[in-house]
Amino acid sequence: MNLVLLSGGSGRRLWPLSNDVRSKQFLPLLQKENGEYESMVQRIFRQMKQANPEVTVTVATGKTQVPAIVNQLGEDVGICIEPCRRDTFPAIVLAVSYLSDVRHIDPAQAVVVCPVDPYVDASYFTALQSMAELAESGAANLVLMGIAPTYPAEKFGYIIPEDGKEVSRVVAFKEKPTAAVAEQYIARGALWNGGVFAFRLGYLLQKAHELIDFTDYADLLAKYESLNKISFDYAVVEKEPDIAVQRYVGAWEDLGTWNALADKMGSAVFGKGMIHESCRDVNIINELDVPVLAMGLQHTVIAASPEGILVSDKEKSAEIKPIVDAFDPQILSADTLWGCYRVLDQTGETQTRKLTVYPGRSFEACGGESGGIWVVLSGSGSTVDDGKEKSIRLGEVVRLRAGEKKVILAQTRLQLMEHRLGENDAE
Amino acid sequence: MNLVLLSGGSGRRLWPLSNDVRSKQFLPLLQKENGEYESMVQRIFRQMKQANPEVTVTVATGKTQVPAIVNQLGEDVGICIEPCRRDTFPAIVLAVSYLSDVRHIDPAQAVVVCPVDPYVDASYFTALQSMAELAESGAANLVLMGIAPTYPAEKFGYIIPEDGKEVSRVVAFKEKPTAAVAEQYIARGALWNGGVFAFRLGYLLQKAHELIDFTDYADLLAKYESLNKISFDYAVVEKEPDIAVQRYVGAWEDLGTWNALADKMGSAVFGKGMIHESCRDVNIINELDVPVLAMGLQHTVIAASPEGILVSDKEKSAEIKPIVDAFDPQILSADTLWGCYRVLDQTGETQTRKLTVYPGRSFEACGGESGGIWVVLSGSGSTVDDGKEKSIRLGEVVRLRAGEKKVILAQTRLQLMEHRLGENDAE
Repeated sequence: MNLVLLSGGSGRRLWPLSNDVRSKQFLPLLQKENGEYESMVQRIFRQMKQANPEVTVTVATGKTQVPAIVNQLGEDVGICIEPCRRDTFPAIVLAVSYLSDVRHIDPAQAVVVCPVDPYVDASYFTALQSMAELAESGAANLVLMGIAPTYPAEKFGYIIPEDGKEVSRVVAFKEKPTAAVAEQYIARGALWNGGVFAFRLGYLLQKAHELIDFTDYADLLAKYESLNKISFDYAVVEKEPDIAVQRYVGAWEDLGTWNALADKMGSAVFGKGMIHESCRDVNIINELDVPVLAMGLQHTVIAASPEGILVSDKEKSAEIKPIVDAFDPQILSADTLWGCYRVLDQTGETQTRKLTVYPGRSFEACGGESGGIWVVLSGSGSTVDDGKEKSIRLGEVVRLRAGEKKVILAQTRLQLMEHRLGENDAE
Repeated sequence: MNLVLLSGGSGRRLWPLSNDVRSKQFLPLLQKENGEYESMVQRIFRQMKQANPEVTVTVATGKTQVPAIVNQLGEDVGICIEPCRRDTFPAIVLAVSYLSDVRHIDPAQAVVVCPVDPYVDASYFTALQSMAELAESGAANLVLMGIAPTYPAEKFGYIIPEDGKEVSRVVAFKEKPTAAVAEQYIARGALWNGGVFAFRLGYLLQKAHELIDFTDYADLLAKYESLNKISFDYAVVEKEPDIAVQRYVGAWEDLGTWNALADKMGSAVFGKGMIHESCRDVNIINELDVPVLAMGLQHTVIAASPEGILVSDKEKSAEIKPIVDAFDPQILSADTLWGCYRVLDQTGETQTRKLTVYPGRSFEACGGESGGIWVVLSGSGSTVDDGKEKSIRLGEVVRLRAGEKKVILAQTRLQLMEHRLGENDAE
């Protein structure tokens, strides 16, 4: 089975922990049974591997998310990088071409596409497996997942199945209805459209060539920016007469607000924090090195990161996005392909960043416009300059003049303080 | 007139902005009419100078507060430094000896002693002036300030005056009563004891020599640590038959809790912060460089500093001290005699601090146990090594080996990043 995880989304609903390069699916806030924490993407990947160790996972995403995906999921996933955002149909076609042309997957094999961020239980993966088998066996050209509704939601599309069986033919699709209409749908056995699709690889490649003029993956990548934005639902689902729906009745939640996420965190305090006994229903999520103290609060979430501090009534926190959009926060910390960085200070024209380079990784230090200074805080590594390697360790200072460049390579986990002179902008 | 301001107190009630070296009286949170901010000590000093430009002000304090006093009040105050804490009688005797032996004040002149932190209005200073005149004229050996009570407080001592005049003889003192007893006192015209004393300098020197065996200021300083802890009330006030009380009816508040301080701040947001329209009665006090966003909160104070974050119901914030005492917070930022510093990072055995050196000031950089590295972020200055001076500016790196020392002198406001290797403790 080939699973394509669609990983998109900006991260402003969970500000200040998420930002434009760290979307909600990468926040390591979900506590596992062993007490360790994992992110939404790590959770879904772990659950999928537990359900089916043989699964091939490909993440379809934009380039800003690549470092986080590599750091969180390791080398065991394929990554199909969209050069720009072009809605779900081009993204899925790109992923399918990648599977065909880069991974050489047989066109008769099933592909299951699902979003990366629903919070689900193990039976979700059993349903995915069943969807793959239905698609591969030719039971239908397209198999969708239908979520058993728990209330007459206005924010989802509805699928009307032929009957109440585990797997049914689809009679009709209904776009986001009012609550009253949703109740009528539910009375008729309607299911929420979970945005999960299964099909044979060859089926979708054929649809793709019908709608887009391209030869192969490389060609599609090259012309990706010129493609029209169009959703998979509009381009494929609405035009396909042969569709089945697989029912799923387990947990299915969007942890897209602090309120929803706090509910699933497993412990009330993440990071350094104290909740005084006078508090009730309070969560602290603290990525800073200093403590947060909460006193006399109710139904409140406190989230602190190097980028800012949110203190919000839990329900009210769902309204954060337009407020954060309005002040357009700076990105002061991020994952990179070689490790991660955090901006610690901006004084005049000098920016100071703490860099962590993972063992065996390297980055190119660059003198920029006015030069730079790197001080080794811990760990060991080397600088590479014109092929010459020189060891560096605690207290070593690397200086580069304007325009100069030098590769810094980590042997053990290497931490440096970087002073970029005459610049005041993160990379 | 000679004013002695008693500046004591630990700063944990206003954590995380105050700490053991920055007491509440130094927080620059009170907004002036021109929109600028001042601290409690700056406010009382400014008010005093406005009431009487000729006043001589001496601050009696411990050595940890000296940098903050110099930075906030400038060179225009005398500072009498207690080598250790020995309660109010030794502190006042030390200040009086300082006035006599260091400042050569005439023993016939009046001295007024008052705490540095009450929040008062201009008529308080008129009352101080009157007290000084009463003491100097010999109207009484000791003149106290009696605050017109606004409620039957249990936390103050009471003064029972002979009559209801502006200035009266004192009939009796009553220690902190119950509310019921306090009501009876108030019905008899009692006043709160404001902890303000006026006397002739010579009077108190005589009392001092009766109770303490010392020759002069230098001798007293040398034996200060061996003195008994004893309050001025107990040593002098309770034994003196000739006492008058000066009535004061204006504002008199202790801004010792976040609740009380927030009420006087003048604006709801200090520093970077946004209070969403869904909030009611919320204050943000933010010393960090990143924004604080408050949503859906009521009666809440949010205070953030490099040392931590407090989010508290306003009334509940009065109970903070034992909680902060229990986790014994680190001091991560402080004023110094040459400027100020802030700890930005502690990685392994390396501590990184941002230093600000005021123009004309200097400090001795010290290589410590494993050496140190200083990087100039902005401003200009010089290093002085064996009498040789060398200019430093943006991007300059100063390196010291273990044990090495070098003076760094600021020409303009000089900012440096300091990396102390092999140490993880602030000075």
